[in-house]
Amino acid sequence: MANADETVKIIEVGPRDGLQNYPAVLSTPDKVRLIDDLVASGITAIEATSFVRADRVPQLADGVEVCAGIQRVPGVRYIALAPNVRGLEAARSAGVDEVAVFAAASDEFNRSNVGRNTSEALAMFADVAREAIALGMSVRGYVSTVLGCPFSGHVPISDVVAVVEAMDAMGCDEISLGDTIGVGRPHQVAPLIEATAAVVGTDRIAVHFHDTYGMGLANSMAAVEAGVRSVDTSIGGLGGCPFAGRGAKGNLATEDLVYALQGSVHDTGVDLDRLVDINIWLAGVMGRPLPSRSAAALASKRDG
Amino acid sequence: MANADETVKIIEVGPRDGLQNYPAVLSTPDKVRLIDDLVASGITAIEATSFVRADRVPQLADGVEVCAGIQRVPGVRYIALAPNVRGLEAARSAGVDEVAVFAAASDEFNRSNVGRNTSEALAMFADVAREAIALGMSVRGYVSTVLGCPFSGHVPISDVVAVVEAMDAMGCDEISLGDTIGVGRPHQVAPLIEATAAVVGTDRIAVHFHDTYGMGLANSMAAVEAGVRSVDTSIGGLGGCPFAGRGAKGNLATEDLVYALQGSVHDTGVDLDRLVDINIWLAGVMGRPLPSRSAAALASKRDG
Repeated sequence: MANADETVKIIEVGPRDGLQNYPAVLSTPDKVRLIDDLVASGITAIEATSFVRADRVPQLADGVEVCAGIQRVPGVRYIALAPNVRGLEAARSAGVDEVAVFAAASDEFNRSNVGRNTSEALAMFADVAREAIALGMSVRGYVSTVLGCPFSGHVPISDVVAVVEAMDAMGCDEISLGDTIGVGRPHQVAPLIEATAAVVGTDRIAVHFHDTYGMGLANSMAAVEAGVRSVDTSIGGLGGCPFAGRGAKGNLATEDLVYALQGSVHDTGVDLDRLVDINIWLAGVMGRPLPSRSAAALASKRDG
Repeated sequence: MANADETVKIIEVGPRDGLQNYPAVLSTPDKVRLIDDLVASGITAIEATSFVRADRVPQLADGVEVCAGIQRVPGVRYIALAPNVRGLEAARSAGVDEVAVFAAASDEFNRSNVGRNTSEALAMFADVAREAIALGMSVRGYVSTVLGCPFSGHVPISDVVAVVEAMDAMGCDEISLGDTIGVGRPHQVAPLIEATAAVVGTDRIAVHFHDTYGMGLANSMAAVEAGVRSVDTSIGGLGGCPFAGRGAKGNLATEDLVYALQGSVHDTGVDLDRLVDINIWLAGVMGRPLPSRSAAALASKRDG
């Protein structure tokens, strides 16, 4: 049996990070089914939607309806991205208990993404976090470009640490370190975890690794080796940063991490067979196979 | 600078393991170019071809011509698979210095593959090894199905150890542990390396992991963590076991391992940019993109 301290908790980001960059828009009932089925498979933390301007992200314009439609399972964290106070208030009205804010560790990326440098972006998100906490909500912080920036290249660990310190100061509970463009290598992970855990402890660090260069699983395993027990993944490996180029393959697939850890002390406890069911259904809805390799292999075994 | 003891050596298996299961047959000049270009990129050990019955593996029927065509670079190991004495003699005539023999750690797999159980298969390959050594050649041993068999499922480590002992006894220098159907998980790797290294030492162990379930890189990194310094990979991620189902994605891609280790103490020293050149050329020849994710990402950056 896995010890609770060793168990890796998956934060499923498919319904938000996975869907927001896909050209097709899933129907609201399909999104509700996706979230409910993922929770039924054993997922205990899920990023359900985003409260952003509908003209900017039409894929997630139905956040209110999605939140109204899902079955709230007690003990499960349902998270929504809220980039500003207006988004936060919409999330609150929709009954969301936990919001996520984000800032890159690179000025150039923040300028491109939110039109502000890192200090200005953090100040804006500090307002969101302050109001969320006043309303009794939890706040999750995303640090993006932690292992490289598409505009400035190398990102010093000290810049990541500075953003983690700011997110800690603004009251974020969990801080997720994102390799937004998937360029990081396994040997870069332990120093990153060591430096950021020195600020907030490994129990408040999550990792969020993209698979653009095929490093998603190896980098996540390196983080687990370094003591991290919360890993962001996306059903099927959906997702991808629009700056990452045509080779972009999205987030690490939930199925692949669940498969990798099965039978180890870090076993996630998520039902892989049900994830494969969801993968097959979602691929049908989206009209394309999803990138996850373990799901493809397991689905092919069902064919007999 | 990487210390020589820490450097990971790649054994490139694309020209044999990568090509033998593809429906298309590469021309002899294309195979020669592939091998010469891989060596020019910094590869120092390469499985060039196989001396098997042409009616069984028409993709590799031109082993003699390939061996005659390539530029022999001093210090580079050019390896050919030789399943029997007739194949060995053909390899010797073609000027090959190192042959590879193989046996699965599962009776069921050996019966399916060579029509003999494990003991009988090992006896047959011992004859090949004996004659090879008498002729002054080196012998590489492949143990397949080390982390699972498509017919019998679980493979006990003791069965792998028994095959390693037999290969050691027959005079194999390097013994490559193959997860033929790619089902292994990272936490299974260290116990496997520990048990087999107890027989022959980590310096004579290589690993050969398939990426069917997306575990190829993470499993290879686990082997490197366990002290292994020789890793079999295939340009582009070509290859695949015919028993692995339609999800099969071939061997771990050479590009992905080279990328993962760049800048670490285990840096392979292989020129990744030249590997991407080869990947792009080979994809053009084969008329399909190759599975490697890092090569796809790097190729897409060149477009920009």
